[in-house]
Amino acid sequence: MNIKITGSGSYIPSEIVTNLDFAKHVFLNDDGTPFPLPNETITEKFHDITGIEERRYVTDDLLASDIASIAARKAIEDANIDPETLDYIIFAHNFGNVKKGAIQTDILPSLAARVKYDLRIKNPKCVAYDMLFGCPGWIEGVIQAQAYIKAGMAKRCLVIGAETLSRVVDIHDRDSMIYSDGAGATIIEASKEDGGILAHETASFTYDEAYYLFFGNSFNKDHDPDVRYIKMHGRKIYEFALSQVPKAMAACLEKSGIPISEVKKVLIHQANEKMDEAIIQRFYRLYKQTPPEGIMPMSIHKLGNSSVATVPTLYDLIVKGEIKNQQLNKGDVILFASVGAGMNINAIVYKC
Amino acid sequence: MNIKITGSGSYIPSEIVTNLDFAKHVFLNDDGTPFPLPNETITEKFHDITGIEERRYVTDDLLASDIASIAARKAIEDANIDPETLDYIIFAHNFGNVKKGAIQTDILPSLAARVKYDLRIKNPKCVAYDMLFGCPGWIEGVIQAQAYIKAGMAKRCLVIGAETLSRVVDIHDRDSMIYSDGAGATIIEASKEDGGILAHETASFTYDEAYYLFFGNSFNKDHDPDVRYIKMHGRKIYEFALSQVPKAMAACLEKSGIPISEVKKVLIHQANEKMDEAIIQRFYRLYKQTPPEGIMPMSIHKLGNSSVATVPTLYDLIVKGEIKNQQLNKGDVILFASVGAGMNINAIVYKC
Repeated sequence: MNIKITGSGSYIPSEIVTNLDFAKHVFLNDDGTPFPLPNETITEKFHDITGIEERRYVTDDLLASDIASIAARKAIEDANIDPETLDYIIFAHNFGNVKKGAIQTDILPSLAARVKYDLRIKNPKCVAYDMLFGCPGWIEGVIQAQAYIKAGMAKRCLVIGAETLSRVVDIHDRDSMIYSDGAGATIIEASKEDGGILAHETASFTYDEAYYLFFGNSFNKDHDPDVRYIKMHGRKIYEFALSQVPKAMAACLEKSGIPISEVKKVLIHQANEKMDEAIIQRFYRLYKQTPPEGIMPMSIHKLGNSSVATVPTLYDLIVKGEIKNQQLNKGDVILFASVGAGMNINAIVYKC
Repeated sequence: MNIKITGSGSYIPSEIVTNLDFAKHVFLNDDGTPFPLPNETITEKFHDITGIEERRYVTDDLLASDIASIAARKAIEDANIDPETLDYIIFAHNFGNVKKGAIQTDILPSLAARVKYDLRIKNPKCVAYDMLFGCPGWIEGVIQAQAYIKAGMAKRCLVIGAETLSRVVDIHDRDSMIYSDGAGATIIEASKEDGGILAHETASFTYDEAYYLFFGNSFNKDHDPDVRYIKMHGRKIYEFALSQVPKAMAACLEKSGIPISEVKKVLIHQANEKMDEAIIQRFYRLYKQTPPEGIMPMSIHKLGNSSVATVPTLYDLIVKGEIKNQQLNKGDVILFASVGAGMNINAIVYKC
């Protein structure tokens, strides 16, 4: 028995926010002092490092669970399955539903329960739960689906990653420009077809790294200290990711028994273009090689970093032929990889 | 190979809040009108239905992840294991960390990552994630641990349920008297010993039931509409639980092949004494029997409803001989069961 992705769907929010839209933001240092460069220079530098030109925000009326339901419907349609046959709905996120203008995370009921409600699924044996694992949440959800299938507890799972980071950013923090909104969903099934998940690798680094991404106060010291936002120690994350992600990817590939030469694509979390390029360079360097042209499809330029949603969205866009010069063919071996809050890292070697 | 609980620990918060402590609360109806009875009558009726005399709140300095770490340390010590050998830390909650006086849920990083940090575990192969599944979260975490062990992905897991509901209650809602704080933790391991998990059952009812428990506004209409609290449709939950929980328990018992006469204890979520009594009555009625004396140990009188923490705490207290006239002996078959937000129901048949 193999475990395959039999359908995918994504939701690209409709609001396009360009780097120019940050021209009037008042960016501050973490100590509250003014950032000593004009915004034009800030956004240029930002673009050079992250590759982000635009990001997407949901309209004011939408919540994370709403866009998840849209992506889920598309995945179900793509897989051509009856939603009543789903054994699990696994929803990865990190902030729950946050209403526009409000600051509270709403996770009661779980977002998975809301998606199941939206999909009008009646079957009570379809178990719906949420999972918090930082940006690698969707990949980890797929690994959990794999566990249920291997343990004989499920045959078919819906795994979703959705986030509305636009609702939890500190507008005085330059890092706010990184974050975006999005949703990706996939159907994971036991299959008699060749291929599927060949190996997985997961690691949680908490000893020194637990608070590299955290919920913290605005850089504007006049803000209410009881209101917090997504915050990160960018430099530390960059160094950590470069040192650990290539190793985890290589460990996963080794478990799969697939030679590096057979890897057709690496679908990596869209966190920061420079960081992703450095990771892929280091990964291939472990094999004394350089990355082949086009090995790492990117969506960050237009979509930004939508946390858990980046990898399933990227997969969906490639499969649907919506990323220029990128495609996946039957039998292709691909590597999924992610890194994020926790700090968590994971990877999957997958044969299409 | 069997899957057993090899250690447990719990944290009982130090602040005792009696029903008398609610004497000066201004209770309102959901439409904001004054509740037409004196508080003395309200708390008497409340006591008659729920059985709750007292509940426990954490001190102002503590968060859900702090008390989880305390319970986790005790469970690790009880199991006499090296924490570096843990393959998973699964943390079930529904509101994350909420600081005293603040209203935001803080789940970045995940609470599981914080516990792993607190326990000073270095091993990156110990995967730490949070899981949201309503009150049945701890039982579901054990079922997930079981999946990883059966799938060959783990041998030893730490499963925690911890919640600080005192931080998310609407003081104008009589239901606020139900909720309390607490943490329970267990070590779940692959074992060559006899017994362990014999069967499990999980169901998510969302079609009509998804919003029976929800995040809603204060009954005091002068409160900020963007601030929300734990809210429930108590009557609907009561009827739902009575109709579905006994069936799920019986389905689980049937899967296990154990006759009802061999069930020594039923450890059920401490939601409401009258509801739990009605559930156990209906469960035994399915077998044309009445519940044996002492079959259902209760902790709700002194500890209230601490959501995900009630079942692991109750188990821990019985094992440690801290519930009067209650004990578990090697070979005893027990039934864990829970119901809560989602609406989710689950059960495990377990042989000690």
